Amino acid sequence: MAENFLWQVVGNVATITLHRPEKKNPLTFESYAELRDLFRDLAHDSEINAVVITGAGGNFCSGGDVHEIIGPLTRMTMPELLQFTRMTGELVKFMRACPQPIIAAIEGVCAGAGAMLALASDLRYGTPGSKTAFLFTRVGLAGCDMGACTLLPRVVGQGRAADLLYTGRVLSADEGLQWGFYNAIYPSEEVLVRAQEMAARLAAGPTFAHAMTKKMLHQEWAMGLDEAIEAEAQAQAICMQTRDFRRAYDAFVAKEQPIFKGD
Amino acid sequence: MAENFLWQVVGNVATITLHRPEKKNPLTFESYAELRDLFRDLAHDSEINAVVITGAGGNFCSGGDVHEIIGPLTRMTMPELLQFTRMTGELVKFMRACPQPIIAAIEGVCAGAGAMLALASDLRYGTPGSKTAFLFTRVGLAGCDMGACTLLPRVVGQGRAADLLYTGRVLSADEGLQWGFYNAIYPSEEVLVRAQEMAARLAAGPTFAHAMTKKMLHQEWAMGLDEAIEAEAQAQAICMQTRDFRRAYDAFVAKEQPIFKGD
Amino acid sequence: MAENFLWQVVGNVATITLHRPEKKNPLTFESYAELRDLFRDLAHDSEINAVVITGAGGNFCSGGDVHEIIGPLTRMTMPELLQFTRMTGELVKFMRACPQPIIAAIEGVCAGAGAMLALASDLRYGTPGSKTAFLFTRVGLAGCDMGACTLLPRVVGQGRAADLLYTGRVLSADEGLQWGFYNAIYPSEEVLVRAQEMAARLAAGPTFAHAMTKKMLHQEWAMGLDEAIEAEAQAQAICMQTRDFRRAYDAFVAKEQPIFKGD
Repeated sequence: MAENFLWQVVGNVATITLHRPEKKNPLTFESYAELRDLFRDLAHDSEINAVVITGAGGNFCSGGDVHEIIGPLTRMTMPELLQFTRMTGELVKFMRACPQPIIAAIEGVCAGAGAMLALASDLRYGTPGSKTAFLFTRVGLAGCDMGACTLLPRVVGQGRAADLLYTGRVLSADEGLQWGFYNAIYPSEEVLVRAQEMAARLAAGPTFAHAMTKKMLHQEWAMGLDEAIEAEAQAQAICMQTRDFRRAYDAFVAKEQPIFKGD
Repeated sequence: MAENFLWQVVGNVATITLHRPEKKNPLTFESYAELRDLFRDLAHDSEINAVVITGAGGNFCSGGDVHEIIGPLTRMTMPELLQFTRMTGELVKFMRACPQPIIAAIEGVCAGAGAMLALASDLRYGTPGSKTAFLFTRVGLAGCDMGACTLLPRVVGQGRAADLLYTGRVLSADEGLQWGFYNAIYPSEEVLVRAQEMAARLAAGPTFAHAMTKKMLHQEWAMGLDEAIEAEAQAQAICMQTRDFRRAYDAFVAKEQPIFKGD
Repeated sequence: MAENFLWQVVGNVATITLHRPEKKNPLTFESYAELRDLFRDLAHDSEINAVVITGAGGNFCSGGDVHEIIGPLTRMTMPELLQFTRMTGELVKFMRACPQPIIAAIEGVCAGAGAMLALASDLRYGTPGSKTAFLFTRVGLAGCDMGACTLLPRVVGQGRAADLLYTGRVLSADEGLQWGFYNAIYPSEEVLVRAQEMAARLAAGPTFAHAMTKKMLHQEWAMGLDEAIEAEAQAQAICMQTRDFRRAYDAFVAKEQPIFKGD
C-alpha cells in the first residue's frame, strides 16, 4: 500500500526499501510524511515485531532531494519551514517510539536525512563501501537536524560527532565500525539478509521485553542515574509478570529452548 | 563476618570474592541483600579506601541463580517483584554512592546481574577469557535491569549498548577492551593482583578528592554543561581546603613525593 | 594586545599561542583571566570565524603553575578559592558559548588545566608525542575541574574517563586517537598548519549555521531526546531562512561551488 517505498512482510518482520534507485533513494515531502505515518502506526501493529530499513540499487538514501525539497524550502515562510522540520523530526520521534527494534542495512550512499534514518535505527549494519555523511553543512545548514546533535554524540562520542557535523565529511565503513556507528560490516550481497536474520531473531524473542528495552533506552536519555535505576526497577518488575518470563523458566527447567510469544 | 562471599582487608583495601565456584558464583536473595548492605555501610567506613570485587574459581559471577532466584520470581506478586528489583537496583546505587573507588577483576563468566556488578564498578580489568553478557533477554526479560540502559550506553556508546542488550550476546575480551568496557586486559594469573595494586595505589592517594571525583561523576550524570561547571567549581574549592592539597604543594617544593592522608 | 599569549589573525581565523615555552606554557591567574575575557568577547566578534589554540616550543600547556597558582591557592580563604575555580570554569563556559569552532593543536605536554583547554575545544589534533594528563589527583585535588567530569565521559566514555581522572596518568597519542579524544594525529611540523587549514575551511563555510551546530551541541547536553528533536526543528528552521542556505541551493543549480557569507 505504500507509495514511496517497498513494504515487504515475512513472518513478523517488515522490510522497508527506499526505492528510487536512479536518484540513490532521496526523500521527498511525500516520502517523509509516509514514513512518519508508517512508524507512528507501527506503535499499534501487533503483527510486526521487528523492522529492517534499507535502500534499493546499492545505496541507502541520499537524503532530502535538492530539487524536490531544498528548492521549495528556500521559498517558504517561517511557519512552513517549521512545519517541515517538525515533520522530519517527528519521523525520528516515531522511529524511537515504536516498540519494534529497527535495523538499518546500509549500502553505498547514506547522506543527510538518510544518515539520520540510519542513526535513528536501533542497529546499523554496513558494507565496505558504505559512505555516511551528515552533510547538512554542505547546503548551508546546521548539524542540528532531526536530533543529530543529541543522537550522534551518544553513539560515537562528542569529539567525533563534532568532526562529522561541522565538516559534513564521509564516515567510512572502517571508521564507522571502529567508532560504534556500525554494529557490523558485511559484504554487499549479505548485508540485507543479515539484517533480516537479526530482525527475525529479535521478532522470535520476548518482544514485550524488547519493546521495554527500547522504551527505557529512550526514557533514560536525560535521567539521573538513581532515577534511572528506580525506573528500571519498575519496568523490569512489569516484565517479570509476563508469560514469556515464565516460559523461559519452564524451558530452562525442562532443558528446552524457550518459545516466546510476546505476552 | 560476611556469609555469602569472602571479605579480605589488606591495608586500606578490601577485596570481595564471590565464592560459590561450583556454580560460577551466582547471586541469591541473601547475597544480593548482603552486598547491598555492605556497600551501604562502606559510606561510613573510614578504614577502607578502595574496594576490589572478584569471583572465585576462574569466573566472576553468573548472575541471578535460575533455581534460587528466577524460579521464585515467577511465583511472586507485583509488590514482591518490585521489592526485589528495587533491592538489586539499590545494590548499584550504593556501589555508586560509596566514596571508595571499586575495581572489578573479571575472569570467565560475567553474566546478567554479574555483568551489572562489573558495570557499576569504577574500573574493570578483564582477562583474555572474560565473557560478559547482559543476558536478561535470554530469560524473557528486558535489558533495563539495575541501571543497564543508562550505564552501558555511557560506557560503550548507544549503538553498541543496544546490540548487547537486545541480543544478550557475549562481549569478548578484545571487543570489551576496544569499546572501553574493560580498562585493561591481564593474564588470568595476574588480573586480581593488578586490581589490588591499583586499589592500593588509589587508597594511598588523596582519598577525599577521589571520593569527590566519584561523587561528581554521579552528580553530573544528567546536568547541563554550565551547571556541571559551577558544581565542579564548588566541589574543587572544597578540595582546595584539604590538608592533602597542601601536602602535595609542600612535597613539590621540597622535591619529595607527597604522603596523602585523606583529610 | 594580549599580554599572556600571542594572538595572530589571518583572514577570519585567529590563532592563540600560549607562549612561555621555557616552562611549557603554564597558566597563571593573569593568563586565565585574559583567556576568559578573550573568549567572552569573541561572542561579539564578527571578524573571527574560527579559532586555533596551541602552545609554543613543542608543548601545549602544562596547566596551572605550581609556584604562581598552587602556592597562593594553599593560602586562600574559601571565598577566594571559589572565585578562582569559578574563573577557570568561566573560561570553559565562554569557550563553549562563543560561536566560533575552536581547534586545539596539541604537541607535547597537555596537562591539568591545559588538558581542559583541549577538552573544551571542538576538535583536537595531536602529534605522536602528545601527552595529555588530567593530573589534578597528583596535587591532591579531585578530577572535577572546569567540567572534566561531564566533558571527558562524553568524549571518551565513562570507564575510560574514570581511569584518567582517578589516576592522572598520561593518555598517549595512540590511545587518544583510538578513544576519540583526538580527531587526528599529525607530525609535529604539520599539526598547527592542519589545524589552521581546518579552521580556514570552517571559517569559509556557513558560519551562522556552524555557530548553531555548536550552540545546539551545548543546549542538548542534558535534554531528553524528544525535546532535543523539537529544539533542532526550531534551530534548523532558523537556518533555513539564512542567505547561505539559498546561496548553497543557487550554486547547486548552477553547478558551482557555493560562496558562504555567514548571513
